[in-house]
Amino acid sequence: MLLATDLDGTFLAGDPEDRLSLYQTIAAHPEIKLAYVTGRSLEVVLPLLADPTLPQPDYIISDVGASLYHGETLQPIQPLQNHIDVLWPGDSVVAQALAPFPDLERQDVPQARRCSYFCTPERAADPKLQEIADELGCDLLYSNGLYLDFLPKDVNKGSSLLKLADHLGIPHGEVLVAGDTLNDLSMFNCGFKGVCVGESEPGLLEATQNNTFTYHATRPGCGGILQAFAHFGFLGEHGIAAERRVAAQPGQAELVIVYHRLPYEEHRVDGKIQRRRPKSPNGIIPTLLSFFGDGRKGSWVAWAVEEEGEAFEKHTTVDAEQYPKLTAARVGLSQEQVDIFYKRFSKEAFWPTLHTFWERATFREDDWQVYLDVNRAFAERTAREAAIGATVWLHDYNLWMVPAYLRELRPDLVIAFFHHTYFPSADVFNVLPWRRQIVGSLLQCDFVGFHIPRQVENFVDVARGVTPLKTVSRQNCAPRFLTYGCAVGLETMTTAVDTGTRTVKLGAHPVGLDVERVRQNLELEKVQEQMARLRKELAGIRLILSVERLDYTKGTLEKLQAYERMLEEYPDLHNKVTLACVCVPAAREMTIYDELQTQIEQTVGRINGRFANVGWTPLQFYFRALPFEEVVAWYAMADVMWITPLRDGLNLVAKEFVATQGLMQGSGVLVLSEFAGAAAELKGAILTNPHDAADLASSCYHGLNLPKAEAQARLRELFDVVSYYDIRHWSKEFLDAIEPGGIQDASNVHPVPGSIVPPPVASAS
Amino acid sequence: MLLATDLDGTFLAGDPEDRLSLYQTIAAHPEIKLAYVTGRSLEVVLPLLADPTLPQPDYIISDVGASLYHGETLQPIQPLQNHIDVLWPGDSVVAQALAPFPDLERQDVPQARRCSYFCTPERAADPKLQEIADELGCDLLYSNGLYLDFLPKDVNKGSSLLKLADHLGIPHGEVLVAGDTLNDLSMFNCGFKGVCVGESEPGLLEATQNNTFTYHATRPGCGGILQAFAHFGFLGEHGIAAERRVAAQPGQAELVIVYHRLPYEEHRVDGKIQRRRPKSPNGIIPTLLSFFGDGRKGSWVAWAVEEEGEAFEKHTTVDAEQYPKLTAARVGLSQEQVDIFYKRFSKEAFWPTLHTFWERATFREDDWQVYLDVNRAFAERTAREAAIGATVWLHDYNLWMVPAYLRELRPDLVIAFFHHTYFPSADVFNVLPWRRQIVGSLLQCDFVGFHIPRQVENFVDVARGVTPLKTVSRQNCAPRFLTYGCAVGLETMTTAVDTGTRTVKLGAHPVGLDVERVRQNLELEKVQEQMARLRKELAGIRLILSVERLDYTKGTLEKLQAYERMLEEYPDLHNKVTLACVCVPAAREMTIYDELQTQIEQTVGRINGRFANVGWTPLQFYFRALPFEEVVAWYAMADVMWITPLRDGLNLVAKEFVATQGLMQGSGVLVLSEFAGAAAELKGAILTNPHDAADLASSCYHGLNLPKAEAQARLRELFDVVSYYDIRHWSKEFLDAIEPGGIQDASNVHPVPGSIVPPPVASAS
Repeated sequence: MLLATDLDGTFLAGDPEDRLSLYQTIAAHPEIKLAYVTGRSLEVVLPLLADPTLPQPDYIISDVGASLYHGETLQPIQPLQNHIDVLWPGDSVVAQALAPFPDLERQDVPQARRCSYFCTPERAADPKLQEIADELGCDLLYSNGLYLDFLPKDVNKGSSLLKLADHLGIPHGEVLVAGDTLNDLSMFNCGFKGVCVGESEPGLLEATQNNTFTYHATRPGCGGILQAFAHFGFLGEHGIAAERRVAAQPGQAELVIVYHRLPYEEHRVDGKIQRRRPKSPNGIIPTLLSFFGDGRKGSWVAWAVEEEGEAFEKHTTVDAEQYPKLTAARVGLSQEQVDIFYKRFSKEAFWPTLHTFWERATFREDDWQVYLDVNRAFAERTAREAAIGATVWLHDYNLWMVPAYLRELRPDLVIAFFHHTYFPSADVFNVLPWRRQIVGSLLQCDFVGFHIPRQVENFVDVARGVTPLKTVSRQNCAPRFLTYGCAVGLETMTTAVDTGTRTVKLGAHPVGLDVERVRQNLELEKVQEQMARLRKELAGIRLILSVERLDYTKGTLEKLQAYERMLEEYPDLHNKVTLACVCVPAAREMTIYDELQTQIEQTVGRINGRFANVGWTPLQFYFRALPFEEVVAWYAMADVMWITPLRDGLNLVAKEFVATQGLMQGSGVLVLSEFAGAAAELKGAILTNPHDAADLASSCYHGLNLPKAEAQARLRELFDVVSYYDIRHWSKEFLDAIEPGGIQDASNVHPVPGSIVPPPVASAS
Repeated sequence: MLLATDLDGTFLAGDPEDRLSLYQTIAAHPEIKLAYVTGRSLEVVLPLLADPTLPQPDYIISDVGASLYHGETLQPIQPLQNHIDVLWPGDSVVAQALAPFPDLERQDVPQARRCSYFCTPERAADPKLQEIADELGCDLLYSNGLYLDFLPKDVNKGSSLLKLADHLGIPHGEVLVAGDTLNDLSMFNCGFKGVCVGESEPGLLEATQNNTFTYHATRPGCGGILQAFAHFGFLGEHGIAAERRVAAQPGQAELVIVYHRLPYEEHRVDGKIQRRRPKSPNGIIPTLLSFFGDGRKGSWVAWAVEEEGEAFEKHTTVDAEQYPKLTAARVGLSQEQVDIFYKRFSKEAFWPTLHTFWERATFREDDWQVYLDVNRAFAERTAREAAIGATVWLHDYNLWMVPAYLRELRPDLVIAFFHHTYFPSADVFNVLPWRRQIVGSLLQCDFVGFHIPRQVENFVDVARGVTPLKTVSRQNCAPRFLTYGCAVGLETMTTAVDTGTRTVKLGAHPVGLDVERVRQNLELEKVQEQMARLRKELAGIRLILSVERLDYTKGTLEKLQAYERMLEEYPDLHNKVTLACVCVPAAREMTIYDELQTQIEQTVGRINGRFANVGWTPLQFYFRALPFEEVVAWYAMADVMWITPLRDGLNLVAKEFVATQGLMQGSGVLVLSEFAGAAAELKGAILTNPHDAADLASSCYHGLNLPKAEAQARLRELFDVVSYYDIRHWSKEFLDAIEPGGIQDASNVHPVPGSIVPPPVASAS
């Protein structure tokens, strides 16, 4: 059968349960062909195609019949489209013909093969307008005492649908048309079966009351279409109820964390998996675990490699004592899936794009398919873990497509998403071939969180290019965040948008630091010893410290070049300063970093070669990961912490330095890139533009020469921020934002598919 | 002397003539030191520093006295700042102390060393608040029955100003303080000379009425300060009037075009300059000239090289017959200035950044200084050319800083700016070290135009990061522009913003084509002959055509790689298709293109090497500029025009192709990058994402295989756009947008400096 349905007031309307029921029925029945038949233009249908909860149409008849497209390729349906095209004179020809009527104002909506104007009834009565239409070979329509339409002659929804059905060879008896306004009447007059859904325009009901094959439903929108399925006996005698797709069975977890790794580390020893405490460098995992310390029922969904021919444990206990009701739910992936999804695709396609290094991104459709498979597996697993109305907290861009799948499986869930990286504006993000799908998925969330307001606004910028959004609320970014003071500052940010079917809340929640962990480390004897060693070694030498992973986003090369420039420009620094650069290598298989590594090593060699003296090494370069205890000792000894990423989601290293110095009541100076997310939060830092070589050098020099009292005051201000907005503050704030009324807040609970009672089958009206 | 002035209601207030007069007086007197003394935080002072019409302060006392900065470096004034810093407990300490009062809501404005809350009078009366303040060692202030402030103990505007004056060694009698509210009272009680400007808060007037050195002015804002200058006899007995900077004398031109080149070409033959008709590839110059065809008085400002020891003609006639009242005003630049400004800096710093290729940009402060010098020369020249209230139309990013200088010289002018390139969002634009100055300059315009709405919104995004803006008006982008249909589409755009002192109108006006020129070329015999030759040569071969300049923005390399992929994937194309790639070399000195050229040449060689057969060359590569007649013949013969820039302001080549084919009623298919500005305008094109190698190949293949009827229909739709919105439409629409009421519209006319009558000197009140 072919369901040919109007959109607004029909296929997009009805109560949520009816909509879900109809959409799932269509998804479950590939033999039901679907045609959107709408007054909208294709451009305004595109946002619907990005909505993963809507069944995608096989055909689109838009512009009130003037355009016909294949649903998948969005290419015109030929030769049907050609027949219409030759009837249309062209927009500018219509505009020129109407030049004598400057009072006619063109409607500012997307249109194709159609021109609509605002027009007073007096003007519409002017017979000259009909003359113009006749000369142009157009139909002229006037409706609602306001709208004047020029359309291709004899083209309407009905005429185009009829041609499509004949073109496809579908018997007319197997076509069901659905609509709610007079705009749809032409479809009902073609001899198809039809349904005027509940709340239809009275004129339509009147005009179709004697149509043998037109059914007047009582339920609005999708409910009416379901009634018509039953009325006309589509899908057999059991109707919809018997055919519905089996929905995911809810689980027990009130809070589901979906994270890219398990809350413990798995190591294979002698072929057997052994578990170890996680080495979480930033304390996020323990913090997330702490939500389950009060005995909350929970699940932690993460992937694990599934070895062929080996039993795979789907559920494991995390810590029976501390978190008695928390389960780890392992999503089994093949090693190849992990390699493509996690190591290759995310690093080659998404990572550079997210950080505005779009020139470095490469996109492969095959990889995207693996990414989708993995995301679907995560969603399916999550759907089985979460209790009714539970909160699901998804982490980072590896899981972008989970909301799309999860929302379809479990409309009842509260879905929240937190981005741990930078998020760019549309200029950059739109290079992604899958931008519509990604945005469509994220807009299925109830809450999407980022570090800072600039990232929130960039997401809104991207989403606006995909679908119409209404701004529900905005707020000032101050005093928590910088406004005009840095490259990533903003005065106001959006806090909620309305997609038409859902309100998506947005928030800026910069990840906080586990300050306690720094304190504990500082107290360790070996840290104290290391500090003493460094103090001795650095006697008379001021220390500039740099700590980062090897990554082009971090600006390491630019920093080294700036250091070289400093040594050139300020000879007073010779023999008196050392830059210690700790650069943590990427995993060995990440060959994309090889060239950068070579360039860095060359630069290090050149600088020491140019400037070193007996007893003075201007640059100490550590190309390896140091234990956290050792890094803390370096933090404690640094006169200037020089963090200059070209782009960074946040930068926790800056906070680690501040915490270390703050706990010691030190006077180390933080010189920070104004392109790091942390720049918007960490007041007291000296900001620098790492894209400006001169500024990079001069701001570091300035930091070295800051009066001690000012350095101390800046550090107090910084430590005030870092210690107050710590990791516990972050996670609590985020969860409060997701669950303003708590998990049990009934208004957040959407109906669950399994609980839907089939709508009563109404008799014909 | 030191003028220490409050901002809001004082230094930023007063009528426009008084403001101008005071600001120019300060600018002309380096011996007047200026201190902003404000309740604002530094962040909210930053936007003022980006305003080129405001005198820049030597010192900034912000946060009601809690912060002191050097105006130029924005570094704290030490040790004064330290003395305050130690008094301040820190924001989070205040927040924690106030935890028992959750009803106190923090004001969402930028603040430093100060915490302000909203507070009811009942709550403010709670003695516990004062206790808390005492414990924290803070002052507690309650004002306006609404605002509760915690401030460092005994710190206020007066105390900080006093310390500053003593720190600088300025005798108290040489300090003039200016203010208008009780907030400023502490300054008046320090023994300085003072002025309460007109419209001051009655409480302030009352509190200062017995101050010997406080003068109560009658004029508000700057007018009051000027009165005080006279009252206290600053600047000698002639006062302001005698000292005012000589303003630019207006010229005669009602319309001034400021363009990067003259409307004729100059060639040096035997040491003498000879003039030729311009070879304008896109017809903009003749169109701009056409505004002067009706005898309008005009001037065309452009640079010319000034040779040492040679007379330099400042004015030349353009065409005495056609444009009798148009003069060319030559701005003399040295060859070195031209090289740096035009060839190096613009291409190395701005061009890549504007096109989102920020990784390729390099910034040199020295070059920026040359750029400023050149822009100032343009501005000064323009100021002397323009009649009172004239319209000045500036073209492109080479002249970004002209509005800043020009507005100061000539506040009366209507300044309009058109960007001919892409304009990126803040993510990208903010890498420019001079972003604040550039935005500050552009916001001095009355109108800023771009090709498409996305570029307008990106400009607004950038400007919002620099200064607070109110949106005055927005409009839908449809039906003129695509909304969700392409990477650079948007549903709505801003059409005017308010900067607080000025409304800046914004517009999307894609440059149109000179369709007549294409028609004339098509009719040339040699074009017909060339078409015949091509037809013969291409018998049985389908032609894909590519025409562009050598530039990384154009995506030539990506296109060639996609072509290789097409030939791999679709062997049916072998011996049946040719890609003719016309690539116009960059000027020889542009070495930045050398590597790209090598890569392209290698790829061309590889593709032909892999696929060529006897009698079939899959790829014809023309690395040279072809005469326009020849290009038109190629356009006429192309089956697919393949234009795939990674980023492009507009792309006029697409329009040239459409015009050629449209005039011939052809059926050539335009396959166009969705990242070209033209994609938002040219409905009927097949859009492609050039960042997606697979899509690049498949969309070209799809274009080659389009049914002829569809190709014809698409071309009709395209030609409809190109011929209707042609170059004449563009220029008229733009000028109409600048001058809605025409040039003579009095409401657009601002006062001219030369005409300002000095304000009457009021006697003390």
